Parts: sequence; structure tokens; C-alpha cells
Amino acid sequence: MCRWLAYSGEALRPSTVVLDSQHSLVAQSLRSSLGAETVNGDGFGFGWYPDDGSEPALFHSTEPAWNDRNLRELTRSIRSSLFFSHVRAATSAPVQQTNCHPFRYENWMFMHNGSIAQFHKVKRDLTFAVDPSLYPHILGTTDSEVLFHLALTFGLQDDPVAGLGAAIRHVEEVGRGHGLRFPMQSTVAVSDGSTVWAFRYSSEGRSRTLFHSADVPTLQAMYPDAERLKLFGPRARLLVSEPLNDLPGAFIEVPESTVAIVDSSGYHHRPFLPVA
Amino acid sequence: MCRWLAYSGEALRPSTVVLDSQHSLVAQSLRSSLGAETVNGDGFGFGWYPDDGSEPALFHSTEPAWNDRNLRELTRSIRSSLFFSHVRAATSAPVQQTNCHPFRYENWMFMHNGSIAQFHKVKRDLTFAVDPSLYPHILGTTDSEVLFHLALTFGLQDDPVAGLGAAIRHVEEVGRGHGLRFPMQSTVAVSDGSTVWAFRYSSEGRSRTLFHSADVPTLQAMYPDAERLKLFGPRARLLVSEPLNDLPGAFIEVPESTVAIVDSSGYHHRPFLPVA
Amino acid sequence: MCRWLAYSGEALRPSTVVLDSQHSLVAQSLRSSLGAETVNGDGFGFGWYPDDGSEPALFHSTEPAWNDRNLRELTRSIRSSLFFSHVRAATSAPVQQTNCHPFRYENWMFMHNGSIAQFHKVKRDLTFAVDPSLYPHILGTTDSEVLFHLALTFGLQDDPVAGLGAAIRHVEEVGRGHGLRFPMQSTVAVSDGSTVWAFRYSSEGRSRTLFHSADVPTLQAMYPDAERLKLFGPRARLLVSEPLNDLPGAFIEVPESTVAIVDSSGYHHRPFLPVA
Amino acid sequence: MCRWLAYSGEALRPSTVVLDSQHSLVAQSLRSSLGAETVNGDGFGFGWYPDDGSEPALFHSTEPAWNDRNLRELTRSIRSSLFFSHVRAATSAPVQQTNCHPFRYENWMFMHNGSIAQFHKVKRDLTFAVDPSLYPHILGTTDSEVLFHLALTFGLQDDPVAGLGAAIRHVEEVGRGHGLRFPMQSTVAVSDGSTVWAFRYSSEGRSRTLFHSADVPTLQAMYPDAERLKLFGPRARLLVSEPLNDLPGAFIEVPESTVAIVDSSGYHHRPFLPVA
Repeated sequence: MCRWLAYSGEALRPSTVVLDSQHSLVAQSLRSSLGAETVNGDGFGFGWYPDDGSEPALFHSTEPAWNDRNLRELTRSIRSSLFFSHVRAATSAPVQQTNCHPFRYENWMFMHNGSIAQFHKVKRDLTFAVDPSLYPHILGTTDSEVLFHLALTFGLQDDPVAGLGAAIRHVEEVGRGHGLRFPMQSTVAVSDGSTVWAFRYSSEGRSRTLFHSADVPTLQAMYPDAERLKLFGPRARLLVSEPLNDLPGAFIEVPESTVAIVDSSGYHHRPFLPVA
Repeated sequence: MCRWLAYSGEALRPSTVVLDSQHSLVAQSLRSSLGAETVNGDGFGFGWYPDDGSEPALFHSTEPAWNDRNLRELTRSIRSSLFFSHVRAATSAPVQQTNCHPFRYENWMFMHNGSIAQFHKVKRDLTFAVDPSLYPHILGTTDSEVLFHLALTFGLQDDPVAGLGAAIRHVEEVGRGHGLRFPMQSTVAVSDGSTVWAFRYSSEGRSRTLFHSADVPTLQAMYPDAERLKLFGPRARLLVSEPLNDLPGAFIEVPESTVAIVDSSGYHHRPFLPVA
Repeated sequence: MCRWLAYSGEALRPSTVVLDSQHSLVAQSLRSSLGAETVNGDGFGFGWYPDDGSEPALFHSTEPAWNDRNLRELTRSIRSSLFFSHVRAATSAPVQQTNCHPFRYENWMFMHNGSIAQFHKVKRDLTFAVDPSLYPHILGTTDSEVLFHLALTFGLQDDPVAGLGAAIRHVEEVGRGHGLRFPMQSTVAVSDGSTVWAFRYSSEGRSRTLFHSADVPTLQAMYPDAERLKLFGPRARLLVSEPLNDLPGAFIEVPESTVAIVDSSGYHHRPFLPVA
Repeated sequence: MCRWLAYSGEALRPSTVVLDSQHSLVAQSLRSSLGAETVNGDGFGFGWYPDDGSEPALFHSTEPAWNDRNLRELTRSIRSSLFFSHVRAATSAPVQQTNCHPFRYENWMFMHNGSIAQFHKVKRDLTFAVDPSLYPHILGTTDSEVLFHLALTFGLQDDPVAGLGAAIRHVEEVGRGHGLRFPMQSTVAVSDGSTVWAFRYSSEGRSRTLFHSADVPTLQAMYPDAERLKLFGPRARLLVSEPLNDLPGAFIEVPESTVAIVDSSGYHHRPFLPVA
């Protein structure tokens, strides 16, 4: 599986959270506390929206993140107000740049932690359910990228919550047709460049962890001496696979079957595909 | 497109032809005389049948062959009586190990120079036509690997000439359905570990070049002072995209619409998908 | 050897010249017209000064530039007013990120096309001559990086022209002590983040090519219909191994034994290590 | 630091111990029990002596060993009677093929787990102590490769125990001159193609772990039902950083300040640089 983070807020150097936190994403690549795997060394990705409103840019590498010099250089040299980063622990798909997250389609970015169960059994059915006009945009061979293109097929760009919901329901239907009990395991992040949606859902109801950061002004009031908190503006929000530090109250777990949303109004969440 | 060579005969160090010929395959990677592209620097592959009769082993790299140290080490340290090697000039599929030739299925190896025209348009239809049981074995994203799996679908393992012939006819039928005039361009090498089949065929009747080496005893008689020829045994045969040296008579062009076959009886060829 | 370009002027997307010119640096990586080698596929580098005045950032890759997706993404997503880019044709040093140009020391960037003759013979003497406090900053194994550290040793940061001049004289002295007639072949670019110095010099007086771009307002007046010229501001200046297009007057050769300087006053040049 | 293994004995597929043991070297790359680091994902190497008595061949990769397909292919397809393999956890030197072990000089192979303390401080002194004729053979930038070339300088080829002993004493002398209390930490393996020497030594007397395998006929008698033991011939011997399985008696710790030797007479060991 994998670890990821998504940031939205005042522009800052991505290295602040990708590299320099107590349990930064790069630290998690070598030693994750809450992940299904301890080591997430099978490549990584970093994607950011340039401030001029153009499509997101992607940097993908097959190297482990912990020793990659380019990632250090890049995340210390740019500033961004919306970016994703992901470290991968490959399940079955090969370690190659086209299998690194985040994925992109026009102004949309997508990344995933989790898996489609027994993907080799259902891959063909799921891939052929992707809209033929989207099919040529699949560049790699992961379950995650197929899930993204299914979500696009089912209307992600019009309504991300409905689109991903329908995609997951389709994955579950196909999976159950192949005799799988729990076809879907996921935390997913999606953005259109303005809003970030983060989904925590699994067929089993035992999903990978997902956290959101607390309100920064509140945190700063709680910890007036915490120098590091001064790096963040009042609108800064993180969605993360696991907390970036041990500061009590800094990261709050997102419940099961929930979509967490960060937009100009701040953070809120609501049920997503709840079990009846 | 690409350049490739296939060797069958007495066991020898593959470096003899991969690295050390006047126009070795590695030399061709940097400067090809007859190829559609001068530079074939988008990864390479080397596959060989171990002498114990087991499945072929593959070495794939995304680096240009001309500076790759591992290729030098490997081809200078083993001996093999049947091996393939391929240097790639990527058309559209990304440079990644899973897109490097040769490809393998059980005891079969396959490599390709050429392309399926407008592959992004026909990829979905062609991939759909692969037998569902073979579909999960497609690891990369090239037209070549789809062609191989189509040939397997159409019976390559029972009859390589009929199997690849039917696959190409299918590619042409699908391509023409998409309005393409010349859907297929190819020279292909296939082996089961005993026989090597090399195909030269294109829909247009203007295929990439293909050559076979002359009979070694005859060559040795023609050039009694040629020290290098003494490296080769009497059964040694090469099938190559372009000649490995300038020695008159050493390499003979294989005609259009032809399958060249090297087996225990030596070299022969016959028509393949001839224009009516 | 190699090909490189340096840009200074109004902030623009580096892709404008790295990727999108008629003979962009990436195009030259696959087919250079004037270089000592046609193919420069042994890795590449891109270095830029962020607009906040911090140290330059580096992106290095061992892949050929022509198919590298990260280079496309990065140079299309940032804007920079001073950047270097370099494509490498390895002479003897291995293809690895630490051998990719540009090199950096504090706020200085350095890149090189050319070579120190018979480097394996003189490497020990030259490396010994590097100031012991600078020695640990040598990360790779190229002649170019040793030349940079020799120039730093001889005062590059105080006076780049004198510092590099003294370094080259030292290389020549050591080389001649080893019986070499023409120890140095170079075009070098150096910057401190404000000024760019580009040197054309070889012991033989037959240096690799070096060009500077013409004054942009003059060019725009000459070619009022050239849409592409409108991408450049009035202070834009390029220093390049070979012209990026075939537009007459757009690129002007820098003479032998010359240092070309681009700073806030525009372009000028003066003699560098002239033969007596 | 790192993990390594050395095999000498009847020819076998290296995958037997590199990939397929309970705690194979590749398993250790992801999760080492006894190593200074849990993860050894910064590249790996495999070196083997071909059966024709020629120089050893090397395969080096910067990828983590656990997902590398080429390592699987290679070690499953050849057979060798003497091979080394190493997985790396980089301390300071970059992740690049030239920093992967084993290193080679003529018919000698060398690999190392451990480090020279504060290498950046002593690197210059140690490097310039290497014989000038050997200096150009240093290809990478690790402390380990410098140690190998110092040992060659001090006579490794004539007497490996004396040569490495003198090299370590020199490292200690230089290190103490720089104020270091414990300059050397090491387990080292060396071979000339016939004998394997494995050294366990550290200035502090608290060295990284080192084990040798038990006599195979004895083990087979102890565990008559152990199918896996039947893969090994009576002369098979392993020297390893940590045991490859949990079988009681299968691996025996080599004492501190000891050189373990495997040759045609079997296994024996003797003191190496013992504290007075």
C-alpha cells in the first residue's frame, strides 16, 4: 500500500511537510507507523498546481523517496498553495514512473492508498468499463489508475463524490461477481485545483487510516511557543495517511465511510457510501 | 522503432555479437545505418535460454545500451546457444522495463521492430481481442506486447507462422476498420527455445530491413584469414535488423513477406502473408 | 562532450528554450549539428535560481533528455529569470546523477562542455590541488567537477574570470607535465545568480562552439511577424553551445579565447587567456 | 550500513540463498533483524565467478533489491560455485551503481558492511594514500571502495589478511589523527576466486554481526527431513551478515577480531587484529 499527503492553503514550500516534519512523508517512506507496510520505497510522486492556474505538474520517480535528491531540490525551491505527495509500496504492479501517484487528467489530480482485491482477476472487466475515449489516457498498470479512470467515466468531473462513489460501487459489483468478499480498500485524494476531496472507504469497513489537520489558528493558540506552527497560514489544511507529528490535537482522524472536504470555507466532512 | 538480433548455434559469449562486432547491436543503438531512427537509446533487453532447458531469462534496462555496464558484464560472462537482444527507439509507449523486449510467455520469447499504426486508436480493440486468460500477462503498454499476446491467442504455441499470421490479419482488419491504410509494420523474432522464426512483413509491403547470416563454413572458406570468424561454430546463425559488419556476403537480406526459420536443419525461408 | 544553454532575462518558462525551440536543447540531445558527438544521451541537468534569491535548485537525471517526462513537467511549470541546462555525452566518467551538470557551490552554478585530456592520468594531481576544505564537496567523478573546484580554489568567487583562468592554467601545466600537448578543451558557463560568464577556450585554440543570442528588441524589429520572438522580454539573453534556431542573425558566435558576460548592462565580451 | 552474503561450494543457483531462504538477502533488504538499519534499500550488487576461471562478473543496481526483476532473472538462470551479494543502506555516499558492492580489481572481489567514521573528514588523506597506479580504478565515492584500494595498496593480493590488516591500521591511524576514537567498523568479504576471507573487526570491539554456515553433511544428519538442505552439496559454505533461517545450529557466529576462511579444506578461522 502507500502513504500520502495533500496540502491546501497559503502558498508554502512543500518541503515543510514532505521533508521537514517530525514524521514527514519522506520519513514515513522509510518507517511508517500506521501503514499496512512499514516501508514505502517503491517510488514516489509529487504533484502541484502552479499559481498561474494551469494544469498540475507532476514529478514521478522510481527511487525510494528517502534518498532522492531531486525531490529535496524541487520541494525546497518552489512554493505552492495546493499539492499532493505520495510514497508507494507496490502490491503487484511494477515499480515504474507510470505507476507512481498522483495521476492527472486535465486539471484533476488523484492519488490512492489501498488496493482493489485480486486485481489481476478483475482488471480486464474494470479496464473495459472505462469510457473508450478515456482508455488511451491510462499510462500505467495499477489498480489505482483504473479506479481514477472509472471515476472519470462515472462523472468525477461533474460531481467527485458521486463519481468516485459510482466507481467504487462498480468495483464492488465486479469483484463480488468474481467471488470476492471485500473488493475495495481505499483512501483516495482528488482535487480540481480549488477543492480537495479525501475519501476513506473499504468494503470491509476497516479502511486505511486518514487524518486531517486541525485549524491552524486554534493550534497556534494552544501552542504559542511552537515555532514550527508559525510556518503555516490560517487557511493551511493537510489531509494525510498518518499524522506528521506527535503534537496532541494537531491531527484528527477522519471516520470510516467518510469524505473529507477542504475548500475556501475550510474543512468539513460527510458520510460516503455508508453501510445501510 | 528498434534494432534487434537473434542468435542460434553453438554456445558462445553473447558479447561477441551484442558488443564486439563492427556494427554490433550496441553500436547500432547509438548509430543505426538502416533503421527508421538513427538512435535507439530508449532502453534495451537481452534474453537467453539457459543450457538446462529451463524458461528463458530476461534482462531489461531503461538505460541506453551504449553505456550500460550490466549488459557488458552479463554478455561477457555467460555462454548461450540461443539468445535475443533488442535496442529500443520508443514511439509512444513510455521508457520503462516492462516495455523492453524481448517479451516472454512460458518457454517463448518474442521481439519486434516496427509498429502498429495509430496504436492509441486501436489499442482498446486489440487488447480486448486477447484471450482473457492471457490478458493478465500483459505487463507493459507497447503495441509489440499486445501483438505477442494476440499471436498467443491465435495459436502461436501450436503453429508460430499461422499464429502470428492470424494476429497480423486481425491487426489489419481492426486498423482498416479505423480507417488506417497500412496498419502493420514489423519484423518479428519468435523462439520456443529450439527454433527461431523471424518475420518480415508490413501492410504496405515496405518493411523494415531483416538479414540472416551466411553459412559459417562457407564464409570461413571465403575468408580464411578472418580471425573473428573462428569464434563461430558451423551451426551459428544470426537474424538481424541490419548487418553486423561490412564483410561482403556475410549477411543476406530476407525478402519482403517472408518468414526465415533457423532450426537444427539450418536456415531456410518461405513466404509469409504474401500479397495475392 | 555535451551541449548546454544558459538563460538570463525576464522570467519565462524554461521549456520555451529547453523544449520548444526549433533546435531546442532537448532536440540537440538527440541530434546535435555542431557538437563533437551527435547524441548527448547520457543524462542531463537543469538548474535554476528561484526568484526569492536563494541558492540555485538542481534537477539531475541519468535518462536521455528526449524522453524524460519530469524535465517536461518541471520546465513547463516554473518561471525563472536565470537558469542553466545541460545534456551530456559521457566521455569516461559513468552515467550517474552526481556526474550531471550543472554543479553547485553555495550560490554558484557551473557547467562545462569539453574535457580535460587524458583525465585518468592527471586526475590525481588535479584533485590534490583542490583546497582541502573544498575537497569533500566533490560528489561525482567528472573532469568538469574537478575543474569547478579548482576554479573555486583559485578564487572564482572573488573574480570568476581570474579564478577560472588560473584553474585552466593549472590544468595545462599539470597536463603538459604528463606530456599532453593540448590539455584543455572547454566552453564553460558560470553564474552567481546575477551575472552569467561563458568562456570559450582550448589549449589548441580550436574550441567547441559557443554562441550568444542577439538583442531581442533588434531581433523583433528585424522580424516583426515572428510570433515566437514575442515570448521574450527586452533583456532576454541566451548563451548556447549551438543556435536554437535557423533565424539569420538570432545567434552570434563568440570568438575563441573569449569570455562572454551577461549582466544588468546587457551582453559584452572580452579576451580570455589569449595566446600571446 | 548493509547486509551481505558470500557463497562457496558446489555450483548452485544463487537464487537459492539470495531470494529463496527464509531470511534471504533480499528479505533482509526489506527487513533486517540484526543490522544497524532495518531497511537496506539503497541499491544492491551481485558478483560471481564464471566457471571458466575468468574475472568475476558484476551486476549493480540502484533499485531496492526486493522488487528488482533483473536480480530474480539472473540469479535463477545461472549456476555458480563462488558468488557475493550485497544490499546497501547508504550512509552518506549517493545511491549510484558505482557505489554498489561488490567491487572488483582483476580477479579480486570485495564487499563491506560498516563504515569509516566521519569519512568526509578523512577521505582526502585516505584517498591520497592509495597507490597512484590504483587511484584511477576508484570509480565511486564510498568509504568501502577506498578501503579496498588501500588494502590493495598494502598488499591484499599477496596476503589478504596482512593487506587488509595494514589498511585498517592505516585508517585507524589517520582517523585518530583527526580526533576520532573508533575510526573503523567493518565486516568485509574478499575473494580471489578460490578462497573467501571474511573479516569481523571494529576499532571499538563491537562489530557488526557475522556468521558462517555449519557443515552441510552434519546439518543434513541433524535434520534428515529438511528438504531444503538437499539443495546444498557437502562443500557448500556461506558467510553472512545474519542467519538466512531460524534452524538451530545452521549458522554460527564468527567472533570479534576474527578472519573466517573458506577454502578447499573447508572452514576455519583465526584472530585478526586482536586487541593486545
